[in-house]
Amino acid sequence: MAIVTLTTDFGTADGYVGAMKGVILSLAPGTTLVDLTHDVPRHDVAAAAHALLTSTPLFPPSTIHCAVIDPGVGGARAEVVVSAGGHYFVGPDNGIFALVARAPDAAHAIQAPAFRRSVVAPTFHGRDVFAAAAAALARGEALSSAGPAVELRGTLGEAPPRTAPGRVIGEVVHIDRYGNLVSDVAIADLNAAGIAAPGTEVTVMVSRRTVRGIARTYEDVAPGKLLAYVGSSGTLEVAVREGSAADALGVGRGAEIEIVAVEPPSR
Amino acid sequence: MAIVTLTTDFGTADGYVGAMKGVILSLAPGTTLVDLTHDVPRHDVAAAAHALLTSTPLFPPSTIHCAVIDPGVGGARAEVVVSAGGHYFVGPDNGIFALVARAPDAAHAIQAPAFRRSVVAPTFHGRDVFAAAAAALARGEALSSAGPAVELRGTLGEAPPRTAPGRVIGEVVHIDRYGNLVSDVAIADLNAAGIAAPGTEVTVMVSRRTVRGIARTYEDVAPGKLLAYVGSSGTLEVAVREGSAADALGVGRGAEIEIVAVEPPSR
Amino acid sequence: MAIVTLTTDFGTADGYVGAMKGVILSLAPGTTLVDLTHDVPRHDVAAAAHALLTSTPLFPPSTIHCAVIDPGVGGARAEVVVSAGGHYFVGPDNGIFALVARAPDAAHAIQAPAFRRSVVAPTFHGRDVFAAAAAALARGEALSSAGPAVELRGTLGEAPPRTAPGRVIGEVVHIDRYGNLVSDVAIADLNAAGIAAPGTEVTVMVSRRTVRGIARTYEDVAPGKLLAYVGSSGTLEVAVREGSAADALGVGRGAEIEIVAVEPPSR
Repeated sequence: MAIVTLTTDFGTADGYVGAMKGVILSLAPGTTLVDLTHDVPRHDVAAAAHALLTSTPLFPPSTIHCAVIDPGVGGARAEVVVSAGGHYFVGPDNGIFALVARAPDAAHAIQAPAFRRSVVAPTFHGRDVFAAAAAALARGEALSSAGPAVELRGTLGEAPPRTAPGRVIGEVVHIDRYGNLVSDVAIADLNAAGIAAPGTEVTVMVSRRTVRGIARTYEDVAPGKLLAYVGSSGTLEVAVREGSAADALGVGRGAEIEIVAVEPPSR
Repeated sequence: MAIVTLTTDFGTADGYVGAMKGVILSLAPGTTLVDLTHDVPRHDVAAAAHALLTSTPLFPPSTIHCAVIDPGVGGARAEVVVSAGGHYFVGPDNGIFALVARAPDAAHAIQAPAFRRSVVAPTFHGRDVFAAAAAALARGEALSSAGPAVELRGTLGEAPPRTAPGRVIGEVVHIDRYGNLVSDVAIADLNAAGIAAPGTEVTVMVSRRTVRGIARTYEDVAPGKLLAYVGSSGTLEVAVREGSAADALGVGRGAEIEIVAVEPPSR
Repeated sequence: MAIVTLTTDFGTADGYVGAMKGVILSLAPGTTLVDLTHDVPRHDVAAAAHALLTSTPLFPPSTIHCAVIDPGVGGARAEVVVSAGGHYFVGPDNGIFALVARAPDAAHAIQAPAFRRSVVAPTFHGRDVFAAAAAALARGEALSSAGPAVELRGTLGEAPPRTAPGRVIGEVVHIDRYGNLVSDVAIADLNAAGIAAPGTEVTVMVSRRTVRGIARTYEDVAPGKLLAYVGSSGTLEVAVREGSAADALGVGRGAEIEIVAVEPPSR
């Protein structure tokens, strides 16, 4: 039985998400539907890309992830089905898959009648294109039968972290519900800068505030205090225990975050 | 395996929706539960009616749609199961089904013990009446075994659009999450006024603002600009590309919307 | 087929809930996932305990309820699987199960490898411990195989209502989405005070406001008026019909509520 997950910015007050669910259950009876999130900020492709990265790798192989944050609906961006990392992704090629499909195994345009509803409203491809395409994959249609192979063009326009000996500069790529600042600085970046060796003291700087050392979990600091730690997605995060780092520091997505090795005192 | 969809104004912070789900899964094991929306504005029967219209027709035949926006719970409004358009609807007869069951095939009061929990709290019919009735249908009980046949009385009190040659006057019946103004003016109304013939130029007026022509999709205008278009439900909508028409025009539900054919210049 | 319900304070804008769902569906294929609520106020263990009490008893026996409101993640609180009232509960031992598992049949620490992911992030036990433990139970693993038996220590620090002849003093333990004040005063408490006998007149006092008598349902009073009634969970509630008692009275959780028998006039 196929699993189809749903990620949108539709909110849950209208009937739009329900319409997509109805299409999928009509075209692929017995499919297991799973809501990932419908509360992505409106038109925020980068936030959706991050939510997909946080959740989709945990699903069973061959899960179909249908993601519709689509400010350009009806316009020029391509409609695609993608195979990457053992999963399928269905949605607009606007950068939403930039994090989960950095190296896709295959991507095809959604053109075949079996992958679209017979009438397509120009303003609701979530229902008439993407839900139908997800249902086609759930029924077992081959990815390649959706249409011609395409190259994914969508990007998020994010630069990777810069590293130098003893220094990494990255950015805040996501603010979560708790106000935690999730950065793009991975363990590998710290290793590349030679500052993750056991015992290396570091200073983390964001928005002119400095945090000394990397904590293991929130309880390592007192309530209300700032801490830096390796988050559950494997990148560096900055938080305030039982508070909001985003509020405390007044920073948003895109803010620079810098990790610097502290010189041991000379002997 | 039966499908039961859920539509409420309960929000999702309390345990009320969960209680309904538990009742259904207890009384009809194996049912597929589908959340349509629990974020209908409190007591807003019209918004729920619109959400049902947007989503329920897309579901497979015989889907059971349980909808509980019930400001009169415990009072005089009837509790009903309805068959219409190949689907089943379960809820209070307060107008919530006025759009999806304009011409019901059958409607019955919920009175039989098999359709109600043995003890019914006067303030939570969602759990004790409607969830139980939805479960009874999911188990395969006949609609007519719920209780005596009844006439649906609930209405939304909305007048249909008025048409005259070259002119249609309707109203905004829904504001969606994006601030798009969804009207009740359907293609058929435009046809009735003789203004939808290909090439007919129209002017759309709402709240003293005028939009020239009917666009195909958002990308037909520049970001921030107003447009009118035929929405995904088949009625005229007014939107601001990448913005909120409701905010830009300061209008809410019930606002008048007028479509007028533009006279071609005399030759 | 096992049912696993999910209760968190993660909100639905991030990918965290989706990550838990992915883990469960990966480790226990075919599990039926049911969202109870992800909108518990951040870190509000008492609100989650109430949501569980409202919803979980309605589910079929042996349902697995995974609840993660976990401000102390990575700290000293125990991670537990609990059997109580014919249901299973999985989460941190911080009081979240204080209402649904007052007298647990068994409780075990989550230590066995089959109940945890191989790598556990110190800040996301919802994904790496609790979802994995719920999946283990869903696969049919015995509760006792999770780890050593433990005593539950978490409490909500709430005192039970005090009763005296003709008088009960309780407190507001939950404010629901409608602004209804849900108290901890049960029918049994009223009986203990001898004031629930049929015909006993009572006065309900909260925040210096007085309500005379106990109504059956909202429609017993005019819109905008205060009423007291026995709520759907079996405890006394105070509401404003088609309004918010919390707003009208300016009270929050913890407010005192007093029920006093009215002396019949002496003859």
